[in-house]
Amino acid sequence: MLKIILMFPFTHYLRGEVMLKEHYLAWYRQFRNQLDAMRNVVIKKLSEKPRAIVISGMGGSGIVGDLYQVIALEKLDIPVFTIKDYALPKWVSKHDLVVPISYSGNTLETIECFKQALNVGAKVIAISSGGKLENLAKENNVPHVRVIKGLVPRVSLPSMFVALSKSLNMVLGENVVEVEEFEETIDLLEHGVDYVEVEEIASHVENTLPIIVGCIKYAPLAIRFKNELNENSKIPAKVEIVPEWGHNDIVGWEQPYFRKFSALILREKKAKDRKCIAILDYVTKYFEKSGVKTLTVEIKGESTVAQMLYGSLIAGLVSTELAYRRNIDPLETKSISEYKKYFATLF
Amino acid sequence: MLKIILMFPFTHYLRGEVMLKEHYLAWYRQFRNQLDAMRNVVIKKLSEKPRAIVISGMGGSGIVGDLYQVIALEKLDIPVFTIKDYALPKWVSKHDLVVPISYSGNTLETIECFKQALNVGAKVIAISSGGKLENLAKENNVPHVRVIKGLVPRVSLPSMFVALSKSLNMVLGENVVEVEEFEETIDLLEHGVDYVEVEEIASHVENTLPIIVGCIKYAPLAIRFKNELNENSKIPAKVEIVPEWGHNDIVGWEQPYFRKFSALILREKKAKDRKCIAILDYVTKYFEKSGVKTLTVEIKGESTVAQMLYGSLIAGLVSTELAYRRNIDPLETKSISEYKKYFATLF
Repeated sequence: MLKIILMFPFTHYLRGEVMLKEHYLAWYRQFRNQLDAMRNVVIKKLSEKPRAIVISGMGGSGIVGDLYQVIALEKLDIPVFTIKDYALPKWVSKHDLVVPISYSGNTLETIECFKQALNVGAKVIAISSGGKLENLAKENNVPHVRVIKGLVPRVSLPSMFVALSKSLNMVLGENVVEVEEFEETIDLLEHGVDYVEVEEIASHVENTLPIIVGCIKYAPLAIRFKNELNENSKIPAKVEIVPEWGHNDIVGWEQPYFRKFSALILREKKAKDRKCIAILDYVTKYFEKSGVKTLTVEIKGESTVAQMLYGSLIAGLVSTELAYRRNIDPLETKSISEYKKYFATLF
Repeated sequence: MLKIILMFPFTHYLRGEVMLKEHYLAWYRQFRNQLDAMRNVVIKKLSEKPRAIVISGMGGSGIVGDLYQVIALEKLDIPVFTIKDYALPKWVSKHDLVVPISYSGNTLETIECFKQALNVGAKVIAISSGGKLENLAKENNVPHVRVIKGLVPRVSLPSMFVALSKSLNMVLGENVVEVEEFEETIDLLEHGVDYVEVEEIASHVENTLPIIVGCIKYAPLAIRFKNELNENSKIPAKVEIVPEWGHNDIVGWEQPYFRKFSALILREKKAKDRKCIAILDYVTKYFEKSGVKTLTVEIKGESTVAQMLYGSLIAGLVSTELAYRRNIDPLETKSISEYKKYFATLF
């Protein structure tokens, strides 16, 4: 008994990085819990196919739309847009489906988009753990899907992802994300992570400005990686997407500028896209030649769904590990709270 | 006479930065010339409205789609997507309009998208100065619009922009971009630039890693600015878009990391969006507090069209000025040529 207390002394256990790490390592359970919760959710299939799907959200909630968009690109015959703003595009109409996602339910940008969607007569499904968005949805007779309460927004990604993809399956009347993909994801989140790799990635990034590189398919994952480094590790980062990288950013490294960059190359472990892999090889050699040290992060998973969630888990763990090494609380995001307070005065 | 020769000695005149600068300063003429050329172009109005417009292009050609997308957001009831890849999304169908743009007409990614568009039966309009894209368009009986030949792709932006917007006006049967907006743009390109400001921006950025910040509306302009700094000045840069910036990147600056960053804040001179301006004020104060020096770049112009082109001109001139100060040839983009050669082996 004493031994256990010594292994997890109370003060240490309360430290943000330990709490956050536990949350990330329990993602498989969170994912499964939300799947269970979705059994009680019924959303009617739309009588006609929407022209487009617009997913609106900010930060840790908005990224869920980005991840879903990539999955939809391979599977859906309807275009999906993600909006990270306080206004919907003018083209949104009654022919479109709008999905505002806000973990807290109180994100002002997302609430504005929700109101605008109602104004133009779009179909709407709202997703949150409660808050104003849930109340507004109920008042306006709009389907609302609840995600698991009491988490940090960026940690609740599995719950939000399951809520979004299951809701869209229902409303579209087709399994855009299939049962086997949900199952593969749970299995990978539970058994897929090698912590030695997490530490290796953290060491690579430490004391540098990280550049996260991926193909179009991994663009949302690269953005998620950057955001996790911002929020958990408190460091700035930069994202580059190929093949566009080869048409401009590549030239930025021709002449020595300033050092202390590092590159993380996100690569599909069971690579199907030969061109993507060949370009990533080129990026790796090019950066090394330009004095930017690179490291390949192999993304496990068969389905894109599993890859997106596995990659996000790695990003979460790496950024938490890095916070620990920098002696920084990964949980606290003081400046976002301050920004939100200021932003609220504009409405 | 001697005086003139001394002012423009032949060897100096041939230097890339002088040539490029002259090209940028002559944008108003290029813009007008393409408008004149468009008088001879006839494209039939589509019998039915497309579900979506997909503009495909890479680098200096692809950015034209991004700029157009922002203009369309305010004016068009059809969603516009830009694709910077060698594959179209799966959802593209005969209900959509695809516009492949490649200045040279030989960009492999864009040619792939062109072929895929034909395969799925989408409506297509191709834009290039010639090349393989023009030949393929003719062979397949697809409308092709020619832009002015013999320029560097990134310098031919006005020509490509006019070709795209005039073609879309025709094919949609409505003036998405109006005559007065074209005229305002020409006037602003000819008389709007203050070179003292260009030098001031270049000095601000010199010897730093620039972060270009803008609201959603200015996102393509921020990307263009980055690309011009990459290609002309040979320096890496980073883009941040508000309000999303306040939900993650902001935390990256909480703890000292490494210095020598600078921020350029793109701001509408005749600001209409109160929230955007208030957030940019916040970004400015926040960066200054975090040790990142900031400079506001005021974007002139009434219409979004004029703003996009004016902002792009400032980006072109600043990046050329910076190349001059770094003693670098802004015209040469050796690494893009090498990358393209490698990329060609993948097809």
